[in-house]
Amino acid sequence: MSRSILTVPVHKVEAESSTPFQDLLAVEEPLEIRLGGKTVSITMRTPGHDPELSVGFLFTEGILSDPAQIQEVRSSKNSIKIDLKPEVEIDFDRLKRHFYTTSSCGVCGKASIEALRIQGCPVLPVRSAMMASSVIRGLPEVLRADQRVFERTGGLHGAALFDAQGKLLLLREDIGRHNAVDKVIGAQFLAGHIPLQETLLLVSGRASFELTQKSLMAGIPILAAVGAPSSLAVETAQRFNMTLLGFVRDGRFNIYSGASRIQ
Amino acid sequence: MSRSILTVPVHKVEAESSTPFQDLLAVEEPLEIRLGGKTVSITMRTPGHDPELSVGFLFTEGILSDPAQIQEVRSSKNSIKIDLKPEVEIDFDRLKRHFYTTSSCGVCGKASIEALRIQGCPVLPVRSAMMASSVIRGLPEVLRADQRVFERTGGLHGAALFDAQGKLLLLREDIGRHNAVDKVIGAQFLAGHIPLQETLLLVSGRASFELTQKSLMAGIPILAAVGAPSSLAVETAQRFNMTLLGFVRDGRFNIYSGASRIQ
Repeated sequence: MSRSILTVPVHKVEAESSTPFQDLLAVEEPLEIRLGGKTVSITMRTPGHDPELSVGFLFTEGILSDPAQIQEVRSSKNSIKIDLKPEVEIDFDRLKRHFYTTSSCGVCGKASIEALRIQGCPVLPVRSAMMASSVIRGLPEVLRADQRVFERTGGLHGAALFDAQGKLLLLREDIGRHNAVDKVIGAQFLAGHIPLQETLLLVSGRASFELTQKSLMAGIPILAAVGAPSSLAVETAQRFNMTLLGFVRDGRFNIYSGASRIQ
Repeated sequence: MSRSILTVPVHKVEAESSTPFQDLLAVEEPLEIRLGGKTVSITMRTPGHDPELSVGFLFTEGILSDPAQIQEVRSSKNSIKIDLKPEVEIDFDRLKRHFYTTSSCGVCGKASIEALRIQGCPVLPVRSAMMASSVIRGLPEVLRADQRVFERTGGLHGAALFDAQGKLLLLREDIGRHNAVDKVIGAQFLAGHIPLQETLLLVSGRASFELTQKSLMAGIPILAAVGAPSSLAVETAQRFNMTLLGFVRDGRFNIYSGASRIQ
């Protein structure tokens, strides 16, 4: 039994009958991320790939920019300690999410998008015909076939990175969609693969501003969601030349931004 | 057109055809919550019921305990300002989530549950036969029928409060499941209805620790999810005598905790 799954006794109620059985649950536990001796985050997550999750979080938040900055990553139960090389300065202020407000605009979606630009999110280079629509339509099946914990618990989100030919590069699962994405990006960051050119990231469920921001930080040109995107996810994708696909399921999908990358 | 929905031009790709059409998106924008002149939270949410969302957040975080503490709630675009009566002291430290660690346990699920007890989460009184299983099996249909924005965008989570006879009391929608729950609880808090005895809260999607914690703060005896619960949600429900139901759909459901409340 993996650390990601727990067995519990359950009553199954159907019509007028109630049957006891053993159900499998996705495990949810807190993870503390410590950077240079300081706790910078406590997040609920599904155990597994904790170093990648922690490094991915610090990279997508703009704290880390290069795997060479890392001195050591130590893992103990539900806690990850990351030490950076002595010469690396840490800008802890970045960890407070920046939403710039102006007197004319106030807090608004536009300010959130502008904050990404200031944070260093790259505007993606536009290329035409990176990926064939026939390949994209087949991706959800690959995601489902490989989502092992989801298959058994029904409780996990998945994030899967594909290359331009539709080959699965990496799949991670978590109760939190943002954690699954951080696990994927963190692994690629540690491997020195950022920016993730010529890739597509497929996420189960919906595409929010947060997922779009994380994908942008990693330079991923195509973000595809099995569910619907939010208004701000679409506006953000358009602003940074990212291709955003929604409702990628049942042999179809919608293009909300960056149609030129789709063949 | 409501503030919760935005129209965007989209390409619909199906087999080898691509058709342009106008799609409806759930709006996602930041909301700033200011308490006593201080920004205590910036959260992405779907506009609508912002005062209830803000008050519900402050109550479920343990900052507010009584609607009489509130002097004034002012709403401007994407910002809510809440002033409390002069005699009310605010414990801003509560806003940093408490996860107690001990040398023996470290950061763990058990510590997160124990923190709820210290935070003042009530252990719910056990009553038998509060609700009939035949009523529960019909609730998802009520939720779907009333989820207006979801119906049109596919992008929203819903949280619906029912009484013991299965009558819908209140439904709220948001891109964030926790926001939909805060909107429901905030409205009930402002109306002086806390603790929400003899009620069931139905949420679309999955049941996490966070949703269980929020429901417990409001004294809701039955939490029901259309999707799967997490391990920590189940452990928390068991610890506080809450009834937790999962996979409430297609005319069936599973009981993970508190079976005695179900007839």
